[in-house]
Amino acid sequence: MAAKKQAALQFDMSTVTGLGGFTKGHLSKYRARAQKAAARVVNEAETGKLGFWRMPSFWLSGSRFRTLQKQANELGKRYENLVVVGIGGSSLGTRMLLNALGHRYHNERPNETRGGMRLYLLENNDPDSFLALMEHLDLTKTVFNVISKSGSTAETAGQFALVLNTLRSEFPDNWQDHLVFTTDPEKGSLRPFAKEHGITCFDVPPDVGGRYSVMTTVGLLPALCAGLDVRGFLKGALEMAERCSNSDWKSNPAFYCGAVQVAADQEAGKNMVVMMPYADRLRDWTEWYAQLWAESVGKRLDESGTKEMGCGSTPIKTLGAIDQHSQMQLYMEGPSDKLLVFLRVGAFGKSVKFPPKTQLPEDLHYFSGHSMQELIQAEQTASRFALRKMNRPSYQIDLPAVSGHSLGQLCFWAMAKTAFAGYLYGINPFDQPGVELGKHYAYGLLARAGFESYAKEIASAKAPKDEDIL
Amino acid sequence: MAAKKQAALQFDMSTVTGLGGFTKGHLSKYRARAQKAAARVVNEAETGKLGFWRMPSFWLSGSRFRTLQKQANELGKRYENLVVVGIGGSSLGTRMLLNALGHRYHNERPNETRGGMRLYLLENNDPDSFLALMEHLDLTKTVFNVISKSGSTAETAGQFALVLNTLRSEFPDNWQDHLVFTTDPEKGSLRPFAKEHGITCFDVPPDVGGRYSVMTTVGLLPALCAGLDVRGFLKGALEMAERCSNSDWKSNPAFYCGAVQVAADQEAGKNMVVMMPYADRLRDWTEWYAQLWAESVGKRLDESGTKEMGCGSTPIKTLGAIDQHSQMQLYMEGPSDKLLVFLRVGAFGKSVKFPPKTQLPEDLHYFSGHSMQELIQAEQTASRFALRKMNRPSYQIDLPAVSGHSLGQLCFWAMAKTAFAGYLYGINPFDQPGVELGKHYAYGLLARAGFESYAKEIASAKAPKDEDIL
Repeated sequence: MAAKKQAALQFDMSTVTGLGGFTKGHLSKYRARAQKAAARVVNEAETGKLGFWRMPSFWLSGSRFRTLQKQANELGKRYENLVVVGIGGSSLGTRMLLNALGHRYHNERPNETRGGMRLYLLENNDPDSFLALMEHLDLTKTVFNVISKSGSTAETAGQFALVLNTLRSEFPDNWQDHLVFTTDPEKGSLRPFAKEHGITCFDVPPDVGGRYSVMTTVGLLPALCAGLDVRGFLKGALEMAERCSNSDWKSNPAFYCGAVQVAADQEAGKNMVVMMPYADRLRDWTEWYAQLWAESVGKRLDESGTKEMGCGSTPIKTLGAIDQHSQMQLYMEGPSDKLLVFLRVGAFGKSVKFPPKTQLPEDLHYFSGHSMQELIQAEQTASRFALRKMNRPSYQIDLPAVSGHSLGQLCFWAMAKTAFAGYLYGINPFDQPGVELGKHYAYGLLARAGFESYAKEIASAKAPKDEDIL
Repeated sequence: MAAKKQAALQFDMSTVTGLGGFTKGHLSKYRARAQKAAARVVNEAETGKLGFWRMPSFWLSGSRFRTLQKQANELGKRYENLVVVGIGGSSLGTRMLLNALGHRYHNERPNETRGGMRLYLLENNDPDSFLALMEHLDLTKTVFNVISKSGSTAETAGQFALVLNTLRSEFPDNWQDHLVFTTDPEKGSLRPFAKEHGITCFDVPPDVGGRYSVMTTVGLLPALCAGLDVRGFLKGALEMAERCSNSDWKSNPAFYCGAVQVAADQEAGKNMVVMMPYADRLRDWTEWYAQLWAESVGKRLDESGTKEMGCGSTPIKTLGAIDQHSQMQLYMEGPSDKLLVFLRVGAFGKSVKFPPKTQLPEDLHYFSGHSMQELIQAEQTASRFALRKMNRPSYQIDLPAVSGHSLGQLCFWAMAKTAFAGYLYGINPFDQPGVELGKHYAYGLLARAGFESYAKEIASAKAPKDEDIL
């Protein structure tokens, strides 16, 4: 237990209230609602109603994990490259895992040292990216993992159609072997196609939405194929799930941080929440987090669908220390419209000591005796202190390391926090009704049957006047 | 001239005012100040006072460009890998150029097809990244381009010290050959070191600051080494410089868009400006832009240093269509606190047609007859239309292609717009006084001589109470 404790994430909330007009009183206003939201999350978790919450124990009980690991190993024996065809919730988790737990030059490394398959993503339906990848790959050594619960996501479906065409012409006898699907166990268009052609399928639980799906086969299979520490990731998540099952919102890190983010937004005008990890390995974590938070809390209507809300703070992706040379000027001196969240790493992989004074020009003498890790940590401490001096609120998450175990805790905390924050805002954190309209207009523009009225509406909109074009 | 017109960027401002409470009246309030700011920028450009403005014509007149190209070719003959050691303004432009104009898998491609050197970046002082790169590279084939005007940027200086140490031990006789510097022509600590050891130096004009330096040797040398279309980039920039020399702010795209961004922020509560290109090649452009805008307009004091301002909207980096599956829900339904800027690409590299109906499952029939380009363009049109329907203001930039020529226009426009917007806000868009405090605290923590008081201040700050730690 002692070892477990040591490796737990720690949340330092000492520079949140009392800064930038955000007070303890603001937080206190939320007490009753926070208690209710906390009880609800814990109850839904206990009764199995929160799909994402079940995932760590689902995998770590029985032989499920071993089976999945074996399936990944089989793919790795047959192929060198795994291409994920997926977008949004079907790709951001995988990208995060590779960035955090893989070697920085994973795909460029030789087979002997890579420790897993090369991992590529076909996310955007950008023809330049699609062609670049198809030209780049040796298709005989490549398997495509098409990930879509419904099978109808336009970007994924379109690229799947193109990949399918290519595979059929390259491998007329065994094109099926170059495909695996990750999709709904019953519904959607990929499942019947897989049955017809004998394509391997991996299930996504129907009650786990895209942005909460990193701990399903969506994120786990590609990560296992790439040789990443998935077991540690799940173990960390499980420990955080236990920690977040505490319905006392003030001592529960997911609930307390969620309450802070909602109250800072709604009471103190901090309509942005800046995620600022100080580690290159957490760059893509901020992208995963940005989807999770934005798509969950950005809602027009309350949960009952009757009251206008128009709520949700905007997540900002940054990276320390790089963004000290980019965004910090604005954070220090611009409007006080942000809550910052620092992610600090306790121990990097290996220590890199700066050279002794004798080998440094005089103005760099101050480096000697220190390590790179000490420099980046000093910069993080200094930034937080300087922001506090400028009256800007922030909180800090201490990660023992960027390991599977830390990342699993961090991701689970983020999901639990987001669900709680959604309930606290008073909205449904699991739907995304606002993206349908844009899809319908796009279908209309592509003359898809059933969407004629949307095409007409765009066609009948007034063209820009000459004076509006520069 | 006809060809030139065809390839010019176009700005569609028809969905800006009249939406989300942002009115023509708000813009009109700025007329007098905008006229003044426009006249000032044009005058400073004409009299050579704006360093960045001179750059395109500097390079394209006489033999300067040919000389730089020759120097890059020489490096390419001797080495396969160029590592840029630089951060912020010394790296973001290079990253943008490689992403936009290079092959998506540039570094992974074989020598025969790559068309230039591999290009790596040592930006952050992250020990994991540093070790990963040093292990990955064949140092005999590698040259390091250390980029820092002052030579004292901590991240760059620290990594330079480490690289220097490694080179000296690997190549005791010719370690100097593996280094080139890009720095101030006179000042700073790199220059005397270079003179002493015979290291090649490239000049950065003293009056061009980091975030405005992509068209100096800072961005151009690495881009030339990688074989990118730098001449097209500069030509596009020169054409935009001519277009932006028009002091009528309403017909000048840099000035008009700048006025829109300032007025939307200050008059209509849009404290975020979202950059949303629909092309993977423009992903890193948003990162370059975010530094340019945030560090330029985020200021506490007015230009005279007397009046409290605390101004500056926050730039948000996104990527279409990926962020339709991440941020769009919030943009559609969350608070109306954003101005969106769409970047639309007219023609991608090659056309990719979707397969005919006979080869598609029935629910994907709507793809057939269309290309990937049409799909991504339809999604962009649909998103803009849907946002307009939800009463959200936006404007759109049409790029003929993601070419050097288009990118040069886009970057120059962004710099001219930012300088103008700074004057319109009433602040100095060329300094960054707010980042000094954090640096001083970091020096204090590292026990650098002269910064003892900062160390003391941090040491004497109260430790967090137990109740603040979760």
